[in-house]
Amino acid sequence: MQTLTVNLGVRSYPIYIGQGVFSRQDFLKQHIQGRQAMIVSNDKVAPLYLEQLQGLLEGYDVSTVVLPDGEIHKTLASISVIYDALLTNRHNRSTTIIALGGGVVGDMAGFAAASYQRGVNFIQIPTTLLSQVDSSVGGKTGVNHPKGKNMIGAFHQPQVVLIDLDSLSTLPDRELSAGIAEIIKYGLLYDADFYDWLTSSMPALLARDSTALESAIYRSCEIKAEIVAQDERESGIRAWLNLGHTFGHAIETHQGYGKWLHGEAVAVGMLMAADLSWRQGWIKKSEVRSLRNLLLMANLPIVAPEGMLEDDFMQLMSIDKKVIDGELRLVLLKKIGEAVVSTQFSNDHLMKTLRAGDQLGQR
Amino acid sequence: MQTLTVNLGVRSYPIYIGQGVFSRQDFLKQHIQGRQAMIVSNDKVAPLYLEQLQGLLEGYDVSTVVLPDGEIHKTLASISVIYDALLTNRHNRSTTIIALGGGVVGDMAGFAAASYQRGVNFIQIPTTLLSQVDSSVGGKTGVNHPKGKNMIGAFHQPQVVLIDLDSLSTLPDRELSAGIAEIIKYGLLYDADFYDWLTSSMPALLARDSTALESAIYRSCEIKAEIVAQDERESGIRAWLNLGHTFGHAIETHQGYGKWLHGEAVAVGMLMAADLSWRQGWIKKSEVRSLRNLLLMANLPIVAPEGMLEDDFMQLMSIDKKVIDGELRLVLLKKIGEAVVSTQFSNDHLMKTLRAGDQLGQR
Repeated sequence: MQTLTVNLGVRSYPIYIGQGVFSRQDFLKQHIQGRQAMIVSNDKVAPLYLEQLQGLLEGYDVSTVVLPDGEIHKTLASISVIYDALLTNRHNRSTTIIALGGGVVGDMAGFAAASYQRGVNFIQIPTTLLSQVDSSVGGKTGVNHPKGKNMIGAFHQPQVVLIDLDSLSTLPDRELSAGIAEIIKYGLLYDADFYDWLTSSMPALLARDSTALESAIYRSCEIKAEIVAQDERESGIRAWLNLGHTFGHAIETHQGYGKWLHGEAVAVGMLMAADLSWRQGWIKKSEVRSLRNLLLMANLPIVAPEGMLEDDFMQLMSIDKKVIDGELRLVLLKKIGEAVVSTQFSNDHLMKTLRAGDQLGQR
Repeated sequence: MQTLTVNLGVRSYPIYIGQGVFSRQDFLKQHIQGRQAMIVSNDKVAPLYLEQLQGLLEGYDVSTVVLPDGEIHKTLASISVIYDALLTNRHNRSTTIIALGGGVVGDMAGFAAASYQRGVNFIQIPTTLLSQVDSSVGGKTGVNHPKGKNMIGAFHQPQVVLIDLDSLSTLPDRELSAGIAEIIKYGLLYDADFYDWLTSSMPALLARDSTALESAIYRSCEIKAEIVAQDERESGIRAWLNLGHTFGHAIETHQGYGKWLHGEAVAVGMLMAADLSWRQGWIKKSEVRSLRNLLLMANLPIVAPEGMLEDDFMQLMSIDKKVIDGELRLVLLKKIGEAVVSTQFSNDHLMKTLRAGDQLGQR
C-alpha cells in the first residue's frame, strides 16, 4: 500500500494505491465528514463492487444512483438524475458524494458534488486504469455537450482518492490498453526514464502483473499530482497534460461519444502531436517511430478514424478549450520527457500531420 | 460615483455605484480580458438597456441571449440555452459573460460562467434594487430545483459589478419594495445605526430620491463586501446574510417560484426570525413591532401566505442548506444590528412563530 499527497494547501488530499484498499473501512470513513453519503456508479461496475462499498458504509445514511454505463451518458441529463436523488433523499450540505466507477462516473459525480448546494464533499474510487491514473486526480469534473467534450464543468477537488488494484482484474483488455495510453502520456511529457521503463515493462503491464501496474499507477499519479500542485486551474504547465487531447477530443466528438474510448483517441492524438513535433524539427523521426511501436505494442490505434478528414479536425479543434482569441494552441513535444504549449507551429506542417493517415510516424 | 472593493485576494473586484455608470465605456472595457463577450438578459430588461450595452461593446465579438423573465425560468434548462449559445457562437475560455438584469439573470449568467469550460470571466450589471444590494455581490450563483431554491450552483466571483442608479427609474414599485427588504436586512443583522437611518429615510427611498438610494445601496454593498471578505464560502459569519431566508425560501417553494418576489418572502421571514428571537428572550417585543411597522411602511408583506401551515414550513425547511445532519439552523437576532446562527431555540417557540399568522410582532 502506498500513499501520495496532492499538495493544494487547504484542498490537499491523499491518494491511496494498493491491493485491498477499498475493503478497508478506515481509509474511507476518516474522509467522510457528516452522516450522509451518496454513491454514484454505473450499471457495469455496480454489480461488481457496490455491495462491498455499501458494506463499508454501515451506520451512514447512504443513497445510491446507478447510471447507464458509457461516455454517451456523460450529460447534463445524468447530472439531473443525481440532483433529483440528492434532493429526494434530503441530502444536505454535509453529505459526501462517492464516485465508484471509471472516468465518466467520476467526472459526473464530481460535477454534481461541485454544484449541489454550491459544493459538497467528494470521494473518488476509480475502478478503471484510465480513471486511476488520470481523471480521478486533479479535480477536473464535468460533462459533455453535443458540440464539445467536457465543455461544462468545474474544478472540484476530492477529499481522497482510493485506488484498488484488485478492481483491474475485471477490466476488459480494451480498457486496460486505453488506460496505458494515458500512462504513456506521462512518460512522453514529463519523464523520459519512465517512458523507457514503460517500453521495457509493456509485456508485464499487459499481463496485469500487479507490481508493474502498481509502479505505473504510482508514478503516473505522482507526475499528475506534481503538475496539478503547481497549476491547479490550468493557467500554465497543467495544459501539458492535454498532450494528444486536442486531436483526441476531435476524434471523439467526430465519432460520437463512446465509440472510441478516450484513451484510444488520445493514443492517436499523441502520435499526431509527436509527428507534428518532428515536422517542426523538435524531436527525431526515430522517436516518433518508437512511440508508434509502443502504442502498437499496447494494442492501441495509431490512425485516425476512416473518413475523418483534416477539415473535420480543424472544425472540431477550433472550439477546444485551449483556443484563445481564435488562435489554436497545441501541446507538442520539445523532446521525449518535455512538452510545450505552442501556437508556434507551421500550419502547413499541421495539415501534413492531419493528412498523414496510416503513415503517421512511418516516413 | 463611488467605488467599493470586495477584498478576496486574487479574486478581489470593484463595485461602481452611481448615475450613468454603464454609459461609460471605460468601466466595462478595462474588465474584459479577451475579444469575446456574451450578454445574458431577459425579455423585460433587454428592450430597455440591451442596445445601450451593445453600443459600449463595439469592436468585441458579442453574442446575446435573452431569456424569459422570472424566477420560474431560473432552471437548468435556461442554463442549457446559454451553453448552447456559447458553443454555437464558438466562445472560448477567454470569453466574458455579462449579466444584464435582476438577480435571476445574474444567478444564471454567473452559474453558466462558473461552469462553461470549467469557469470563464463574468461581469454583473444588476438592474433591480434587490440584485444591486444582494445577489450581484459575493459570488453566489445558481438555479432552482423543483424541490428547493438555489440547490444547484457555484461560488464564482465577478470581475466587476456595475450599479447604475438610473436603471431604478424603470423599476416597478413592487420590485423597489422587494429590494428595500434586503436593505432592511443589512441594518437588522449588522448595523443598528443604518437600521435607524432606514426608518427615517423610508419615505425618501420610496420616492426614489437618488441620494437616499445611493447611500442605502452603498452601505448595503459595503456590509455585504465586509462579510463576504471574511467568509467567502459561508462556513461562518456569511450565513448571517441568510436572515429571514430559511423561512422565506420555504414560502417561495410552497407558493411556486415567482408568485412571491424573493424580497417579499424575505420580509416575512425576517419578521418570523425577529418574532422567534423575541420568544427566546433575545430582543424586545417593541423591536419586533418596529420591524413590522418598517416593513409595512415599505409596502412589504408581514404574514405568510394564506393556507401555508407550520407543517409546510417544517417540511420545506428541512432541506435548507443550513440543515446539518438533520438539525435545523436558523439565523436569528441577538439584538438589532447583530445576528446569530443558532440551533439553540425552543421548538415550542418555533411552532408558535409559525402559527402566529397576522399576529406576528403584534402581541
